[in-house]
Amino acid sequence: MKCFLLVLACALAAPLAVRGEDGYRLWLRYEPVASPDLRRHYVEGLTRIVLATPTGAESPVLAAARMELREGLDRMLGANPTVRVEARAEVDPAAGSDGYQVTVTKGEGGPVVTIAAARDIGVLYGAFALLRHLQMNLPLSGLATVSAPRISQRIMNHWDNLNRFVERGYAGFSLWDWYQLPEVRDRRYRDYARALASLGLNGTVLNNVNANALILTPDYLKKVAALADEFRPYGIRVYLSARFSAPIEIGGLKTADPQDPAVIAWWRAKVEEIYTLIPDFGGFLVKANSEGQPGPHEYGRTHADGANLFADALAPHGGLVLWRAFVYAADNSLDRVRQAYRQFTALDGQFRDNVLLQIKNGPLDFMPREPFHPLFGAMPRTRLAIELQITQEYLGGATHLAYLAPMWKEVLDSDTFAKGPNSTVARVVDGRLRPPGPSVISGVANTGNERNWTGHPLAAANWYAFGRLAWDHQLTSQQIAEEWARMTFGANPRVSVPITRMLLGSREIVVNYSMPLGLHHIMAEGHHFGPGPWVVAGRPDWSSNYYHQADERGLGAARGPAGSNALADYAPELAARWGNPATCPDELLLWFHHLPWDHRMRSGRILWDELAVRYQQGVEGVRGLQQDWDALLGLVDDERFQRVKSLLRRQESDARDWRDACLLYFQQYSHRPLPEGVESPAHDLATYQARKLRYAPGHPGDY
Amino acid sequence: MKCFLLVLACALAAPLAVRGEDGYRLWLRYEPVASPDLRRHYVEGLTRIVLATPTGAESPVLAAARMELREGLDRMLGANPTVRVEARAEVDPAAGSDGYQVTVTKGEGGPVVTIAAARDIGVLYGAFALLRHLQMNLPLSGLATVSAPRISQRIMNHWDNLNRFVERGYAGFSLWDWYQLPEVRDRRYRDYARALASLGLNGTVLNNVNANALILTPDYLKKVAALADEFRPYGIRVYLSARFSAPIEIGGLKTADPQDPAVIAWWRAKVEEIYTLIPDFGGFLVKANSEGQPGPHEYGRTHADGANLFADALAPHGGLVLWRAFVYAADNSLDRVRQAYRQFTALDGQFRDNVLLQIKNGPLDFMPREPFHPLFGAMPRTRLAIELQITQEYLGGATHLAYLAPMWKEVLDSDTFAKGPNSTVARVVDGRLRPPGPSVISGVANTGNERNWTGHPLAAANWYAFGRLAWDHQLTSQQIAEEWARMTFGANPRVSVPITRMLLGSREIVVNYSMPLGLHHIMAEGHHFGPGPWVVAGRPDWSSNYYHQADERGLGAARGPAGSNALADYAPELAARWGNPATCPDELLLWFHHLPWDHRMRSGRILWDELAVRYQQGVEGVRGLQQDWDALLGLVDDERFQRVKSLLRRQESDARDWRDACLLYFQQYSHRPLPEGVESPAHDLATYQARKLRYAPGHPGDY
Repeated sequence: MKCFLLVLACALAAPLAVRGEDGYRLWLRYEPVASPDLRRHYVEGLTRIVLATPTGAESPVLAAARMELREGLDRMLGANPTVRVEARAEVDPAAGSDGYQVTVTKGEGGPVVTIAAARDIGVLYGAFALLRHLQMNLPLSGLATVSAPRISQRIMNHWDNLNRFVERGYAGFSLWDWYQLPEVRDRRYRDYARALASLGLNGTVLNNVNANALILTPDYLKKVAALADEFRPYGIRVYLSARFSAPIEIGGLKTADPQDPAVIAWWRAKVEEIYTLIPDFGGFLVKANSEGQPGPHEYGRTHADGANLFADALAPHGGLVLWRAFVYAADNSLDRVRQAYRQFTALDGQFRDNVLLQIKNGPLDFMPREPFHPLFGAMPRTRLAIELQITQEYLGGATHLAYLAPMWKEVLDSDTFAKGPNSTVARVVDGRLRPPGPSVISGVANTGNERNWTGHPLAAANWYAFGRLAWDHQLTSQQIAEEWARMTFGANPRVSVPITRMLLGSREIVVNYSMPLGLHHIMAEGHHFGPGPWVVAGRPDWSSNYYHQADERGLGAARGPAGSNALADYAPELAARWGNPATCPDELLLWFHHLPWDHRMRSGRILWDELAVRYQQGVEGVRGLQQDWDALLGLVDDERFQRVKSLLRRQESDARDWRDACLLYFQQYSHRPLPEGVESPAHDLATYQARKLRYAPGHPGDY
Repeated sequence: MKCFLLVLACALAAPLAVRGEDGYRLWLRYEPVASPDLRRHYVEGLTRIVLATPTGAESPVLAAARMELREGLDRMLGANPTVRVEARAEVDPAAGSDGYQVTVTKGEGGPVVTIAAARDIGVLYGAFALLRHLQMNLPLSGLATVSAPRISQRIMNHWDNLNRFVERGYAGFSLWDWYQLPEVRDRRYRDYARALASLGLNGTVLNNVNANALILTPDYLKKVAALADEFRPYGIRVYLSARFSAPIEIGGLKTADPQDPAVIAWWRAKVEEIYTLIPDFGGFLVKANSEGQPGPHEYGRTHADGANLFADALAPHGGLVLWRAFVYAADNSLDRVRQAYRQFTALDGQFRDNVLLQIKNGPLDFMPREPFHPLFGAMPRTRLAIELQITQEYLGGATHLAYLAPMWKEVLDSDTFAKGPNSTVARVVDGRLRPPGPSVISGVANTGNERNWTGHPLAAANWYAFGRLAWDHQLTSQQIAEEWARMTFGANPRVSVPITRMLLGSREIVVNYSMPLGLHHIMAEGHHFGPGPWVVAGRPDWSSNYYHQADERGLGAARGPAGSNALADYAPELAARWGNPATCPDELLLWFHHLPWDHRMRSGRILWDELAVRYQQGVEGVRGLQQDWDALLGLVDDERFQRVKSLLRRQESDARDWRDACLLYFQQYSHRPLPEGVESPAHDLATYQARKLRYAPGHPGDY
């Protein structure tokens, strides 16, 4: 009781919730600039702001830019500079159609900051860039810049169902209140659009790829149109996931055959209907013939036939088809990681110009680490989009800290060698290495209706990082982390430096305590929280031993010529490097190789010992995060401090479970003791295996 | 586009979300007192505050009171009076064990305000009363008071599932994040407890009455204990809904027979386990043999046998059993509204002392209007608890404005005549008319994880009203509405007076556009949103015509001697008054009588015309609410103003649908034209009947 009193006294000594930082404002907090000198520097340098576009005409987008500047500068500086719109023909060509140029010139009454762009939306992006510059507490001397997005369509993918359940969503219900729409427009809709625009994101797919055809009925389209109206001033175009069998389910047709004239006519009419309501509709995202979703194969047609059906209907309106490459089948004896490659390479060149093949970063499924998807190097005549997962389906949901920018950078910077060295995935995606036309990057959202949008207070860094990388994939993980930390926790380096460090190390920590050395898909069944190397599912490709292949001889997936030969799907340079355990990086070793338990690693340790040490390092990594965070006591507001502290406590416990369960399981095969320094398991293997997590967040099976 | 630009310009002219009132603070906003004179009056009168208890010992509860006072007075007044704890033996006996006495005395250095109570929790209640007094901007001359709750256990009932879906919940996911508990304790938990304590509520049932046995497993009990720890400083005891068959489902037994020794032992051990974790655990709420829930009937036992099983296990620890009287069966030919009466009156006197029979306000199911439940007048030897529904299952969810205090007062003030005149339901419930011991009032929560807790910004008034009436059922609906309006929107009477008026009229408006003149259970199937007089369900007692009995001759449920004779379940005085259409109030007419379409009403109109006029009045009532609200433009912050405005727009549209659909349906039988002044329907009947609302919020069938 004494302890309890003490805890309570501490809790009560801090300000009540009304004064806490609830996270709702994300990185757009616009806190007053603390340093009087810096504030004066800003106030003096920002007396006049010009928003320059070719026409100089007012618009909702420019109104949004003006409002954001007014609000932000008022809050940060207590200043109200004049902000006026001007017509100006010339903009630096490097700004392109969507970018912006910020210049600082000397006017008669003092400096003039001009945000110029070819389109109004560029001005809005420039306004957010200016505000970010101030939030970072950077000197105005660095303000002048030219910036343009490298990828034309930068899109959120929401796996939100119509009942507001979010598949793999860990931050509450869907943001979209379909029942009250279209009449009631939650304030969040606009703040969501502001958050997207502040990063330069310009599209959003509202509904789950496991799609419900009802979204395409007139009543729902009115609701979609209401959201589109809310988003439009922020340059956000709305997309929908389309269910392939919608012509049957809501159209009254007997077939969804992409070559049936009635089906073709139905989709044309449906698309017309959509564009009447939403003139800037973005297009369709389609998951077909994958995990039970209907598709063209039912009618003996190919993925290209299916995609082109939608493409032809959308083309007159400028809409895009994002056709997902995430396909695999239980009855296919080919290694799961090879199946999409096999199917889609055969279709290269057969897709319409307004189709993009949307490919996950890796060939499996958003594991904590995968090599890049070989399709990125193998479809020169197809526009390829990348799909990243912001929500942490396999990295601890909204409970674990895992900053994903390093993971995404790892893939974007990967060299496919498709057109010689420096044929990076990023250059394939941004369009420099394939046919001209739109380019797309998609991110599966981690948002929900929790007060702070993302559940874990530090998970908003992933939303931020996705948006920033979508704009410019050459930014470093460190730059992005530092921006976010400063904007979210204030520019005090005593806070932002350790938080940046925590973020940067966090993903590798998760890899180590869950799936080190290239292990993959050994998580618990269904909900994907926690360890499950023992999982035997109803089909082999959902069973863990399909992937870890542990046996008395060793561990790891044999994907060389003696195994599934998945290495053959990569360029010869990579196949050679990864195909040899001596040159394959440790991080991918067990992805490509089944190796003996006593295989000698670079560290000098044998595989079993190295595996155990990595698991231990993962646990210790979380403890390091805890130490870093605890040192921020008093420097971070109490509400966020306590929440992250408790989340890290849970993460440490979960990390120990991962380590103990996996090592106990694999020890059955290795028959070796844990090396020195690796803590003994808390329970026996049966205890971990008996655990059944019910009603896990974000898992469709529990709803 | 012009119109769109205008709308946007208006929206952007208002402050951004960061400055809006998001509703999170509920009625505990503690806004600065606007009038300098009044503020000075408060500051001068509140320099010293004494918290007086018999021991004068510090405690978590007193720390909470002190913190709340410090925070509230600082925010409202910018003042920091001394707050000290003193030992004082004497408290006004009228304060009882849970109440408080506030006195103002002259000390040497100025006035001293003393909050004295027999228990620490009374001091906390007194502190909230003091803060409410200030929020209401009332003069300190009225501060001295003695107050005590009339009902000993004032309990929230959450119909929250373990997957965070809230049955009949319209404000997002459950507040309880079971996955992250017990480690992560959301800030909301404490703010929830603060809200409850501010009203004097002292208990909460965390999970749905359609219970999942898993809540009783060790892992979940640890999570429950974590919530109990968060709530304890605010005097909130935790209760759980217990699933009758838990001994089978999680206990490994073959039976749940309440007289089986193994079952008895299992529950005793389970209760021991709970009290070890939660020493102040409140007890169990049980829904048994009702709507598919398991119960004692499976074993040939009675409800009393079932309740007493739990009671005996809980008694040594001081726990209570809340046994729900909401039972009815499809295969029972007795009128549904008579079935619980028949079953439970036969058991009067058979329940243990720590059992309370928890009875809904009316005999059917939370309709917009019902007569009181006849059980309240018929079980003199049983402790009876009342269950009210704060969430608006049949009154428009979180989309319609319906202030429910008048509905609850109507029932609480109803005279059962059980022990002569003035045997009101309230007096039965508060214990004055039945065996001594604990008394209970329960309210089915309307909370969720939406930012403002209750979805509709005005729906928090129902949470507030439930709590205030639970403390003192003699408060008027008007008093409570005025308190809430002032605390929630500020003390400016230009705002609080019209909002109070809107609240007070709103429930009757909903009655009129949905189920006027005593009509009931004619809503759409399953989700209960909107009209469904035509519904024919799989069982008669879920079909609308079971209740409205419309035919060529007339309309209404025949419940006199020639009908189901439900009137016989009431006292002779009531049976006589309600049994005669000439003396039965219009509001209950069709509840008790099947009357010809040309029956002459008090208004002079025939029944058909009166029915139509009432529906029209309902629609016009919503339009009146819209006008009242629109007049508050500029007086209410933009965020709440816009949201309520759009909600009222939707409500008006929904009200028209109710009117048009019901009148078209009943017109098939009345064969009469709509009277003058009643607007023509927008569509034909088939259109309304064809509407299928999918994925409605809060409806279990859609998850």
